[in-house]
Amino acid sequence: MTLIADLAAALGPSHVLTDDDLAKYRHEWTQHYPSNPCAVARPATTAEVAETLRIAARHGVPVVPVSGLTGLVGGAYTDGGLMLSVERLNRIRELRPDARIAIVEAGVVLERLHEAAEAADLYFPLWFGARGSAMIGGVLSTNAGGSNVLRYGSTRSLCLGLEVVLADGRVLNLMSELHKDNSGYDLKQLFIGAEGTLGVITAAVMKLVPRPRAYATATLAARSLPDALVLLNRLREATGGLVEAFEYMSHSYMTRLSEARPDVALPFGGTRHETNILVEIAATAPRDALPDDAGEVPLTGLLQETLATLMEEGAVLDAEIAQTEAQRRAMWHRRELAAEITVARQPTIDTDICLPLDKVAVFLDRIHARLPGYDAGADTLSIAHLGDGNIHFTVFPTRDDPALSDAVIGAVEDEVQALGGSFSAEHGVGLSKKASMKRRKDAVALDVMRAVKAALDPDNRMNPGKIIPE
Amino acid sequence: MTLIADLAAALGPSHVLTDDDLAKYRHEWTQHYPSNPCAVARPATTAEVAETLRIAARHGVPVVPVSGLTGLVGGAYTDGGLMLSVERLNRIRELRPDARIAIVEAGVVLERLHEAAEAADLYFPLWFGARGSAMIGGVLSTNAGGSNVLRYGSTRSLCLGLEVVLADGRVLNLMSELHKDNSGYDLKQLFIGAEGTLGVITAAVMKLVPRPRAYATATLAARSLPDALVLLNRLREATGGLVEAFEYMSHSYMTRLSEARPDVALPFGGTRHETNILVEIAATAPRDALPDDAGEVPLTGLLQETLATLMEEGAVLDAEIAQTEAQRRAMWHRRELAAEITVARQPTIDTDICLPLDKVAVFLDRIHARLPGYDAGADTLSIAHLGDGNIHFTVFPTRDDPALSDAVIGAVEDEVQALGGSFSAEHGVGLSKKASMKRRKDAVALDVMRAVKAALDPDNRMNPGKIIPE
Repeated sequence: MTLIADLAAALGPSHVLTDDDLAKYRHEWTQHYPSNPCAVARPATTAEVAETLRIAARHGVPVVPVSGLTGLVGGAYTDGGLMLSVERLNRIRELRPDARIAIVEAGVVLERLHEAAEAADLYFPLWFGARGSAMIGGVLSTNAGGSNVLRYGSTRSLCLGLEVVLADGRVLNLMSELHKDNSGYDLKQLFIGAEGTLGVITAAVMKLVPRPRAYATATLAARSLPDALVLLNRLREATGGLVEAFEYMSHSYMTRLSEARPDVALPFGGTRHETNILVEIAATAPRDALPDDAGEVPLTGLLQETLATLMEEGAVLDAEIAQTEAQRRAMWHRRELAAEITVARQPTIDTDICLPLDKVAVFLDRIHARLPGYDAGADTLSIAHLGDGNIHFTVFPTRDDPALSDAVIGAVEDEVQALGGSFSAEHGVGLSKKASMKRRKDAVALDVMRAVKAALDPDNRMNPGKIIPE
Repeated sequence: MTLIADLAAALGPSHVLTDDDLAKYRHEWTQHYPSNPCAVARPATTAEVAETLRIAARHGVPVVPVSGLTGLVGGAYTDGGLMLSVERLNRIRELRPDARIAIVEAGVVLERLHEAAEAADLYFPLWFGARGSAMIGGVLSTNAGGSNVLRYGSTRSLCLGLEVVLADGRVLNLMSELHKDNSGYDLKQLFIGAEGTLGVITAAVMKLVPRPRAYATATLAARSLPDALVLLNRLREATGGLVEAFEYMSHSYMTRLSEARPDVALPFGGTRHETNILVEIAATAPRDALPDDAGEVPLTGLLQETLATLMEEGAVLDAEIAQTEAQRRAMWHRRELAAEITVARQPTIDTDICLPLDKVAVFLDRIHARLPGYDAGADTLSIAHLGDGNIHFTVFPTRDDPALSDAVIGAVEDEVQALGGSFSAEHGVGLSKKASMKRRKDAVALDVMRAVKAALDPDNRMNPGKIIPE
């Protein structure tokens, strides 16, 4: 029997897609890395995933696990491989509010988990623009970050247990709900962030946290990035760690935003500043969230006071505090248009780097000084999860030239490495950062990754060619 | 040349111990698992660790990494192998308060890191009785837990970067200081909790947190364990997650404490209760820590109110709030005598299990009901990091009988497994829980562990015979 016939017998013919039905799987969200899968298999259960992998093994066909296709690095690319979509593994198996956990399958859309948690008066604190499409499987496989990492950590820190199907179809059951479990190597850590190269994540036990009862949110202009960090540290200290988001938008981001989306109002009555920050503090405890005698949420007062002090010191130039939920949402909307804004103009050279917090400004100064040496007319745009040191620094070169792009990426990596940073923060490696892995990652670490990959997937059939350079 | 001569040439003769100098390395703290190393090597640098491993490889000698020897599971046992003590890798390489990190070598004693952090007005939030002897290398290799896991997580969640020497002497540099770094598999996770079976941890980047400015601490008697959990949940909710410790001491623990240490005062004027809890809330934000107009720390007031409400409801029977630091220390002293108390009487059958929080009481009921079937005269003692679901349930059998011990452990494991728990929470596996691994761990997980072990240590020379059953 052919691969397709075997899969159709196992999953039902309507869940093995070929030809015209492949259209929506051929591209990730970015439209880069167009794929050419031989078919898309859509198993609905862990057992069907296992059977799909056994069939692929028999036919010697590589398997590329996909979920929401919202990745940015070509992780779902294949030329001739079988795509295994987890979209039908879409059950929230359990949500137990008292235990503060949700047991979810890989095809559950992030936003659905947000809604289910909220219905139980809880919060799943992983938050980014693509939440309406991204699925838990992809989120775990890329160890996704986003805007709340500052307070709650990346996906890895939100996962208690994992179910994985290995390349040969064996099911690895690591579905612990426990906060302490030292029973041998913590294998789930290997699969989180492995981008499907070691197996297919089919389900996970995820942590939920108390739902924020009130937010204090502001958009402000700081005199400089170091001044912004002073503000961040004061707010973290004053609130005892309740700052959830601290997002940086450059002057050029505001300019592009106003060009691309004239319908979106800019802050500060349209006055442009260099260093724009969106800060959000979330109260989960009643004493922080209940309005005081003056009708004000205590954290809003604290934010106001801190901003006022820093304005007196000259470190903050202007600030707007959200007075209503609509104003708060408008502030977030400005920030979340970033993906749309940065891909709207092509060509781009985009990066996803991480630096020690106090090195972000140094990096930007250095790279802006070097850039004209490569392309005198290039524009740039920076947007950052500043509280994590994670910058999305984008260059818009004047010409579409792979050699120029490589040179600029190389310059970015030079500066990042010199400052103790990473060339890959939250999007993953996929295809787009394999060359950087080869150039920048510790050589012994690469050897160990190869050894682990060979141990778990000896025939190199799980998402081959991703992450690890040859 | 002999192994000893080669090592002496590399490290200096005074750092290769044999014969009578081995005495203090022959036993872990428990005096179980007496060892017979062929020698102890004491390298002082990462390069010397690498050279030691290369020499051991040439001579085909197994290597057992050791640090503070405060383990409880036989992880440092060897018969004929070379012990590699990291005690001379004892530098705090850097402590950068602004970045809230410490870069420490594996031989740094935990308490020294506490002191160094405190000197910088910060806190390293890993806290357990053996902190005066335990070293960072061992702490990481066992993913140690302790009393503050409830708020800050286990060792794993406090580690940002790692330096490891592999079995063949290659140095794996994963010393990232970043909070986001998705550059391939997160290999450091493999070595944390691997008990030295995959390589020797030589240094790490550890997170520091704001130093608590004030504590609210109480010892209380709850009507039952479920009532205690109601208290925990109310306090966590009311404080927004500031509960650092929630420790359970059984009636039998208090009885043994009073017998073994009549010098230590018991709570509640000597009245005995079934369910004794030590709870501690820590304020890191000034608004929580600064005394109010009445001279009271807000969190103490909150603790007092919550306890008063629960006393009215009948869920709390009695409570004492620490009014001074001396009273607080006395409360902790009672709790920290647990290790001394439990090993003082032999024979013991000890366990380190974890359960979903709401299953702890069920487990204790069931095991107490079953125990007389094995040994009608056996005593028990329970002490728990209740906030983590982690119980140290100890049985004092009436006879020293390995078959009885196995049967009791088997019964404990049955109940734990039925309730979704783990037979190994925070002490690690070592030798003492290998049989449990074989009986209880997912078979595919064991296979994957064997594959990873073989990939990283193909000659099985790193702490052989630990963790993974044959």
